[in-house]
Amino acid sequence: MRRTGRNFISMINPEDNKATPFIQRTTDYEPPRDLSHFFIGRPLATADAPHETIGKGVGLAIFASDALSSTAYATQEILVILAAAGTIAFGYVFPISIVIIALLAIVVVSYEQVIHAYPDGGGAYIVAYDNLGKTPALVAAAALLIDYILTVSVSISSGVAQIVSAYPQLLAFRVPIAIACVAFITVVNLRGVRESGAAFAIPSYFFIVIMFITIATGLFRAAFGLLGTVPDPPELEHIGEAIQGITAFLLLHAFSSGTAALTGVEAISNGITAFKEPRSRNAGVTLIWMAFILGFLFLGISYLTREIHAIPSETETVISQLARTVFDGRGIMYILVITGTTIILILAANTAFAGFPRLSAVLAKDGFMPRQLTYRGSRLVYSYGIVFLAGAASLLIIIFQASVTRLIPLYAIGVFLSFTLAQSGMARRWWKSGQLKNSDAQPEKHSHALKYEKGWALKMISNGFGATCTAIVMGVFAVTKFQDGAWIVLILTPILIGIFLLIQRHYLGVASRLSLEHYGEPPPYTGRHRVILPVSNMHQGTLAALRYAHMLSDDVTAVHVSMDPEETQRVQKKWGTWGKATRLVILDSPYRLFLEPLLGYIEEMIANRQANETITIVVPQFVPSKRVFNALHMQTADLLRKELLSKPGVVITDVPYQIP
Amino acid sequence: MRRTGRNFISMINPEDNKATPFIQRTTDYEPPRDLSHFFIGRPLATADAPHETIGKGVGLAIFASDALSSTAYATQEILVILAAAGTIAFGYVFPISIVIIALLAIVVVSYEQVIHAYPDGGGAYIVAYDNLGKTPALVAAAALLIDYILTVSVSISSGVAQIVSAYPQLLAFRVPIAIACVAFITVVNLRGVRESGAAFAIPSYFFIVIMFITIATGLFRAAFGLLGTVPDPPELEHIGEAIQGITAFLLLHAFSSGTAALTGVEAISNGITAFKEPRSRNAGVTLIWMAFILGFLFLGISYLTREIHAIPSETETVISQLARTVFDGRGIMYILVITGTTIILILAANTAFAGFPRLSAVLAKDGFMPRQLTYRGSRLVYSYGIVFLAGAASLLIIIFQASVTRLIPLYAIGVFLSFTLAQSGMARRWWKSGQLKNSDAQPEKHSHALKYEKGWALKMISNGFGATCTAIVMGVFAVTKFQDGAWIVLILTPILIGIFLLIQRHYLGVASRLSLEHYGEPPPYTGRHRVILPVSNMHQGTLAALRYAHMLSDDVTAVHVSMDPEETQRVQKKWGTWGKATRLVILDSPYRLFLEPLLGYIEEMIANRQANETITIVVPQFVPSKRVFNALHMQTADLLRKELLSKPGVVITDVPYQIP
Repeated sequence: MRRTGRNFISMINPEDNKATPFIQRTTDYEPPRDLSHFFIGRPLATADAPHETIGKGVGLAIFASDALSSTAYATQEILVILAAAGTIAFGYVFPISIVIIALLAIVVVSYEQVIHAYPDGGGAYIVAYDNLGKTPALVAAAALLIDYILTVSVSISSGVAQIVSAYPQLLAFRVPIAIACVAFITVVNLRGVRESGAAFAIPSYFFIVIMFITIATGLFRAAFGLLGTVPDPPELEHIGEAIQGITAFLLLHAFSSGTAALTGVEAISNGITAFKEPRSRNAGVTLIWMAFILGFLFLGISYLTREIHAIPSETETVISQLARTVFDGRGIMYILVITGTTIILILAANTAFAGFPRLSAVLAKDGFMPRQLTYRGSRLVYSYGIVFLAGAASLLIIIFQASVTRLIPLYAIGVFLSFTLAQSGMARRWWKSGQLKNSDAQPEKHSHALKYEKGWALKMISNGFGATCTAIVMGVFAVTKFQDGAWIVLILTPILIGIFLLIQRHYLGVASRLSLEHYGEPPPYTGRHRVILPVSNMHQGTLAALRYAHMLSDDVTAVHVSMDPEETQRVQKKWGTWGKATRLVILDSPYRLFLEPLLGYIEEMIANRQANETITIVVPQFVPSKRVFNALHMQTADLLRKELLSKPGVVITDVPYQIP
Repeated sequence: MRRTGRNFISMINPEDNKATPFIQRTTDYEPPRDLSHFFIGRPLATADAPHETIGKGVGLAIFASDALSSTAYATQEILVILAAAGTIAFGYVFPISIVIIALLAIVVVSYEQVIHAYPDGGGAYIVAYDNLGKTPALVAAAALLIDYILTVSVSISSGVAQIVSAYPQLLAFRVPIAIACVAFITVVNLRGVRESGAAFAIPSYFFIVIMFITIATGLFRAAFGLLGTVPDPPELEHIGEAIQGITAFLLLHAFSSGTAALTGVEAISNGITAFKEPRSRNAGVTLIWMAFILGFLFLGISYLTREIHAIPSETETVISQLARTVFDGRGIMYILVITGTTIILILAANTAFAGFPRLSAVLAKDGFMPRQLTYRGSRLVYSYGIVFLAGAASLLIIIFQASVTRLIPLYAIGVFLSFTLAQSGMARRWWKSGQLKNSDAQPEKHSHALKYEKGWALKMISNGFGATCTAIVMGVFAVTKFQDGAWIVLILTPILIGIFLLIQRHYLGVASRLSLEHYGEPPPYTGRHRVILPVSNMHQGTLAALRYAHMLSDDVTAVHVSMDPEETQRVQKKWGTWGKATRLVILDSPYRLFLEPLLGYIEEMIANRQANETITIVVPQFVPSKRVFNALHMQTADLLRKELLSKPGVVITDVPYQIP
């Protein structure tokens, strides 16, 4: 951590009421140096913040894990749909994969333009806000947040499916294993372990290399007729269902499932600032590399899957069938493939843990999400987003029983919704750029300075074509997958947008009601201050609280709720010795209730108080030497606070007493 | 709620330092009048509390739901085990049921004696503590707590299985439905809905009547040869497994599963105080009634199950198969049977929600569980136990996929462990009672006054025989069910006991370290009081906190963490107008961190403070008009409190400001 000296810039004597009395200091707190750096889209820190920028090699490893990992399940999900028309339909897996790769090319070309137009990082939310306005931006944001959750659920479920393929006896435990994986990632992220690029680079390149070897070996053996079909394949599930024909709907349905391969492609465009200068160029080149690797892996897997007659199954993944066919059984190479695939899937889930809080912070800054999320770098509040993400992903895993096939209908629709909005936004941007030739319109909210660019028309057409394609895919997806679960996303998205707008309305309302603009004179400062001190029994902590109470005011009343006459007698006796002649009120509570009589007494005090009288309730609080023992001590202050929150002029203070 | 007048019994002038200065009041707070009344074993309220006592008819309905509901699954669980030896083994279900009913008779005779010996209610924990000592008592307590959790899981799972039998299309959703049921009961209990006896009496009697009709009709039709076998029975699952022979182990295994029918029999002995006088006699008679009804239902179901060749299945319960065979299809009578069974199962789960906090309170009073649980009647803290119970039961439902068959191996072992300990305790008690003839030994901790009783030897033999039988059953259970899941309970029980002892050690240690016995003189009262006021921006809430800060001390320092230079300028300007010439320190935070710079500043103040100086941090806190909006405002005070808890002499106060 870089430490700067402290500078007292200015200190004005507070006695001069007209001048502004303040002392200024520069603090030396930097955010923790963890991976979140790489995923920060817009630099929210000051401009001179030292960025540890990365090259193309490390960048590929970091940003590609999400996209590349989807090859672990995309082919299989195409097969699952085709299975409804019998094994004969499995031959369509390769042509469908080619169409998906063509779509990949279109999306990549579009995102190349985003990268150059938004060198500070342009997520779909920012691009849409900038060029299309608030509502489309919120649609994109809602879709993206849902997708981050699904990225975790799908990636972890697929990772567990790989493990189960290798160790079938674990099948019954896949939900607990998946939850344990989520818990592991959550703990890693909560502790903010400072990962380096290497933590990502090694597993990513390991996966790429091992899959290249697998596919190359498979193609080589296939070319020489040495590749058989899957030995001892898993049984085709749902064999009892009515076999349907090979219809256009079925093929589109299978195509929709396969588009999961494209998830994660947008990651680089969000993280441009992490790259070395010239960052747009470097990010762009990395994106192209990634697209080629993704294309090769996906097509290779799909081609070989058809060759070896792999069967989609909940008990063994297609990757597992492929690996043990190519490498003749469950030897060392098989284990390496499964291990590499599992690790990259877990890494992909991990990236969502960085992306979710980042997007939340941007939304919070604009007032659409709880404002404390803007303190993104602070480890103390960062945890909310992580825990929420982990909880939501775990819930989905439980509901859908860690089945990738059941989760996938919810997945890609949000991705394509945000693709479409980002590309539409870009198209609109080029159009506006074209209009700027003769005018000087102001750039909008999030905008990177908009200026006239040559060739804007071609760029507009390119992004427009991308938007049209992804919109069509989204439509196909929504129709073919509606029944399977896409409806959940189609319902959730508007609900989320409603929540965003509600939160914004709340913040605007509070700001205007709390404003000092028309506040007039504040109430006078003098006023009575009454202190109430609940006393359960007499010990050193009670004395500390009593001492504090006397520091606040001369008007102190101690209150003891008597649930046990013997205990009360002991308290009274000790009060005579230690109570410093403070008034002690005993509240008899024959039913062993504690809080209700106390609350009743306090409320009576509140009802009878004078104008301008403040009441402070001082509660002794134990602090055990070990945090785990906290649960053994009543947090009376918290309970009182909850009950008395709505009463003006009542303050609850707990005086911590560290148990020696 | 009964209201009594308030009496000022005594008020001594606080100026007389020698006399005890206190005011005494009688408060009029009674615990909420909900069902927990009926389940209170020992009267913890004062002796003159007006008890709404119940007669035998209502008592049967209330206390029998747990025991009677187990007939809904006990027969089926016997069949599940017998299935391993093929359908031929199903014939053994009736003889096994007869042995279980013989065991029921033994247990009931034993509990008759508990009821008369402990007219104030004698749970296994109390009886064991009283007569066997601390360790056996904690064993019983651990077993009972685990069993309360399992009662919820098993009853709800069985209830959902009934629903699924009627509506097979819900099969895939049985886990979510079960969780929803738990959530429903939790909410009902958290709200403390004031149920009357009728809320229990109607469904219980409905179940008894409908099952009598079902069994009577079935027996009648069977007698005249008019009862066929189950039409279109569910498929026998695990048909692929190796069929084993009918071994002694298999029969004992099936018997163990069937003993689930005995769970809940002990409920009446815990709730004797709820009965009208002569309460021991009334409770005893009710127990006998319950045993007869339970015996008839269980034997009837088992007999007819064999007659109709019912098949144990996860998709359709035996009750459902029985009902549609007896009543020829899924007509109105079928629906009534399923409805009655489901409701009584849910009621049985509900009773655990009363029993769990009751036992926790007794344990907490003895220092083995967090002390706040003793404030049992208080709705504010009562909720901890309910939420914990709901969470644990839900977890089990998720892990075991709401399958009664998978849950049952964990279930009855705790029941029989506590049966054994209670009966052994009673036997020891009779022996001691016999020794009292010529001595006058003191009664022990929880003891209802022990005195010489005639016929103690016979009673001792009767309880001893009961203890021996239940101990044997427990052993059989542990051996036959060990692999199926009983090991979990056998591991959890000692862990729980360890936790109990750890908690007790903590309390004893804290009490001695906090004691005033050897404390000497308290530190002097005078001391400096420094107040720190974090200011994010200037609004009415800030002014309220500033006013409060000045009320506490003259030494007030406001601190602003500057994350946005424009915002900081605004704050400085407004501070000149509204800041009452208070010192304002600006902490620059270029990385938009908020808490870290603030904490650093406070820690510096703490490090540099004078001896005997107290630091209070006053934090403005918004209170939105609707509670749900709380999440949108940063709870800075809570975060600071967590971080600064271990620093002596630092108090964090939030000053609530109600947003108008």
